[in-house]
Amino acid sequence: METNQLYLYNSITGKKELFEPINNPYVGMYVCGPTVYGDAHLGHARPAITFDVLFRYLKHVGYKVRYVRNITDVGHLENDADSGEDKIAKKARLEQLEPMEIVQYYTDRYHANMQDLNVLSPSIEPKASGHIIEQIEFIERIIKNGYGYVENGSVYFDVLKYNEKHNYGILSGRNIDELINNTRTLEGQEEKKNSFDFALWKKAQPQHIMRWNSPWSVGFPGWHLECSAMGEKYLGEVFDIHGGGMDLKFPHHECEIAQSVAANNKHAVKHWVHNNLITINGQKMSKSLNNFITLDEVFSGKNALLNQAYSPMTVRFFILQAHYGGTLDFSNEALLAAEKAMARMCKAFDVIDKLVISNTSSIDFNSYKKRCYDALNDDLNTPILLAVLFDVVKSINLIKEGKETIDAVNLSVLKEIVSGFFNEILGLINQSSVSTKSNSIDTLMEVILELRKNAKTNKDYATADYIRNKLSEVNIKINDTKDGANWFIE
Amino acid sequence: METNQLYLYNSITGKKELFEPINNPYVGMYVCGPTVYGDAHLGHARPAITFDVLFRYLKHVGYKVRYVRNITDVGHLENDADSGEDKIAKKARLEQLEPMEIVQYYTDRYHANMQDLNVLSPSIEPKASGHIIEQIEFIERIIKNGYGYVENGSVYFDVLKYNEKHNYGILSGRNIDELINNTRTLEGQEEKKNSFDFALWKKAQPQHIMRWNSPWSVGFPGWHLECSAMGEKYLGEVFDIHGGGMDLKFPHHECEIAQSVAANNKHAVKHWVHNNLITINGQKMSKSLNNFITLDEVFSGKNALLNQAYSPMTVRFFILQAHYGGTLDFSNEALLAAEKAMARMCKAFDVIDKLVISNTSSIDFNSYKKRCYDALNDDLNTPILLAVLFDVVKSINLIKEGKETIDAVNLSVLKEIVSGFFNEILGLINQSSVSTKSNSIDTLMEVILELRKNAKTNKDYATADYIRNKLSEVNIKINDTKDGANWFIE
Repeated sequence: METNQLYLYNSITGKKELFEPINNPYVGMYVCGPTVYGDAHLGHARPAITFDVLFRYLKHVGYKVRYVRNITDVGHLENDADSGEDKIAKKARLEQLEPMEIVQYYTDRYHANMQDLNVLSPSIEPKASGHIIEQIEFIERIIKNGYGYVENGSVYFDVLKYNEKHNYGILSGRNIDELINNTRTLEGQEEKKNSFDFALWKKAQPQHIMRWNSPWSVGFPGWHLECSAMGEKYLGEVFDIHGGGMDLKFPHHECEIAQSVAANNKHAVKHWVHNNLITINGQKMSKSLNNFITLDEVFSGKNALLNQAYSPMTVRFFILQAHYGGTLDFSNEALLAAEKAMARMCKAFDVIDKLVISNTSSIDFNSYKKRCYDALNDDLNTPILLAVLFDVVKSINLIKEGKETIDAVNLSVLKEIVSGFFNEILGLINQSSVSTKSNSIDTLMEVILELRKNAKTNKDYATADYIRNKLSEVNIKINDTKDGANWFIE
Repeated sequence: METNQLYLYNSITGKKELFEPINNPYVGMYVCGPTVYGDAHLGHARPAITFDVLFRYLKHVGYKVRYVRNITDVGHLENDADSGEDKIAKKARLEQLEPMEIVQYYTDRYHANMQDLNVLSPSIEPKASGHIIEQIEFIERIIKNGYGYVENGSVYFDVLKYNEKHNYGILSGRNIDELINNTRTLEGQEEKKNSFDFALWKKAQPQHIMRWNSPWSVGFPGWHLECSAMGEKYLGEVFDIHGGGMDLKFPHHECEIAQSVAANNKHAVKHWVHNNLITINGQKMSKSLNNFITLDEVFSGKNALLNQAYSPMTVRFFILQAHYGGTLDFSNEALLAAEKAMARMCKAFDVIDKLVISNTSSIDFNSYKKRCYDALNDDLNTPILLAVLFDVVKSINLIKEGKETIDAVNLSVLKEIVSGFFNEILGLINQSSVSTKSNSIDTLMEVILELRKNAKTNKDYATADYIRNKLSEVNIKINDTKDGANWFIE
């Protein structure tokens, strides 16, 4: 089966393109990770899960993937246009902690959320503050090539100069003239030649405690720079995929492109992939709009916007039910529907091991398998994949009811579909078996002891022995006392 | 109750000293963490658990603790005396991965082990590679003060010069003359004035891929330096506690002391705390001696040295049964004894909620509580604390048998002892209630379907109906098809 036929939408060309690694079988992928100054919310789950599925699928088809997802722990200012307080430093000031305590605390919590959502660890998870030298050296190249200027200890990127030879706006479609007209002048912008220039290095104000020596001042790097520097360090000057949320297209990714072109005279990224946003009442869910629900709140149900708690697997299923390129509106109804749909699917998968194997199969599961690959190869279309899996569910139920048949070969393909697409690639975990089973043992043992009593009454010792032997396989021991038989787990 | 009366053995004075924070109620504690180039073994669990208990106890008595535990991801050479390949880089070369992929992989696995052992995250977990600037600046101060010299792009610490005014050997008790006589000359040591000088910065050989610009060469920091630089960055020039394994006293901690004194003309650490080692057949368990058992192997039982698997809580209990200052010899007998002892304790704690409350108490649980604090205040004596808890267990069992009585007030003190000392401070989790039941259902159903088939063959429809009805109580449905019966959970 031809599996390496993945077509991915490329945000910079606006087309679905066949994915071909620069250096087959190696794939380099960089995704913008969280700024760790608060708990992750539902909106953060979407890029995490989207690129987790891409990471899983690329590995599944045989590529050796180096997946870099950063932690932003310095330089992300409250106002994206280079002014305001550093987000981490502000939280540290409010909580009277060292900024790196804030970083550690929220990084740990982010990791716990990711683990709950069954999002795999990236291959490398670099922190911005751990790559100051790399960022300084990146700035030096930009200055040397004439695209950066120093003003009062800070370094800015000269957008107009860059736009003379290159195209600032190539990703986001922004037009430089529009930018000139629309950019407000914010406090602290006086040092810039133009208000849409962006900071590569900021001289630290006295109260700013995250600071390092540099050739220009004691200061800190601009937010956009870390991704260019760390992407290059770990994936090379040119790499395959750069992902992130659609809200990062401008200014963040546009600036990344400009930085790499200014430093190396070439684009760093071959394939830009952007997930769309989670909305709530039609608005982007975000920290700055204060309309967010944290993942912990979703998992516990503790938020006035929630009718109930939703498990991490429900959230994952909910997100996969939409194509990553479209918006996804939060609602209790949609999450509840996801919960029910996933339960229905899991229930069907639970009976696979108990299906009766016939000599012939009335259903061809290989055709389902092909449709699964087709769905993913068509720009990672997870809703279509889930629809195919629901067709599989229907077939399982018909086989269970004796209306269709399955043979051993097709059963093994069916198991491959579930373990491959449901578990391995979509990263879903069937938790139905765990929860419902545990307290039915007592009832089953009650039945078995009753049947054993009957067998003994009928002097059918073969059956009594059979029972004792089977149970000992699972460490259950039966004790005969004068008041009857009881049992315990050894 | 006076709780802040903790006496801790100070390795540098050789005495138990009353612990008094420099800046009450704030406590700064630095502990040497792992070099992440392989799986953590039993030996790594000991410092992790020892300082976890200290961290937990300091917080319990009300201090605000900033606990820094580093990740060594660069600079730790195979041969501690500044020669040989970097441990991480070597593993990366062998596995054909980027060094930071090795770092991420083993850091994730270390974190998973720590989570299993219920070891809390430190407040800050800095990486050596993320603090190159800080290390370069630290070296610059050492050079400026006359204790460092540059040779062929590398920088070395001048031990003889330092020892003129200060005491190299103050922690480890090593004598400089002995060092002169005993130090072998190793390859790559020619640049040093004396073979016991140690590297602050090493010029990178061509094959060395982890490298940064510095005033002296493109290279990397010496191993000892990271702890001095990161300790100072996050805890200040002088801080309360520095911990680590006893094997780190020399050269690592001795060098740290020399570096701080050379840079700042004062000792950075007020209180040095060293845990003793885990031995196996009387030898230190270590990677370099290749006599180690990884934690994953311990938890799964997959190592020829193990008779069975031991749970993370058994390992934690085993480690806490010895005072951190004494050696602890690995043996299956000792681990099995820990498993049984902990099970006995948990079983008693399980019945607390079912104890009959009397009007008077024949046992004074406050005296137990005082003995618990006394044990910890005497140099964190966890074996004594566990002995007190076993006295508590005896009392619980006597109450259960009606031979002693407990009233409501003492019951609440008892609960406080369990939640405070067993759970919160020792970090133990009672897992006895969690069962081994989950995957026996399939076998039980196999038995039931077999017996049902017999019943039907014998036209015993009453039994067949009985089975169907009982199973429907627990939502198990049996389906008869022409190829036999199967079952599923509805």
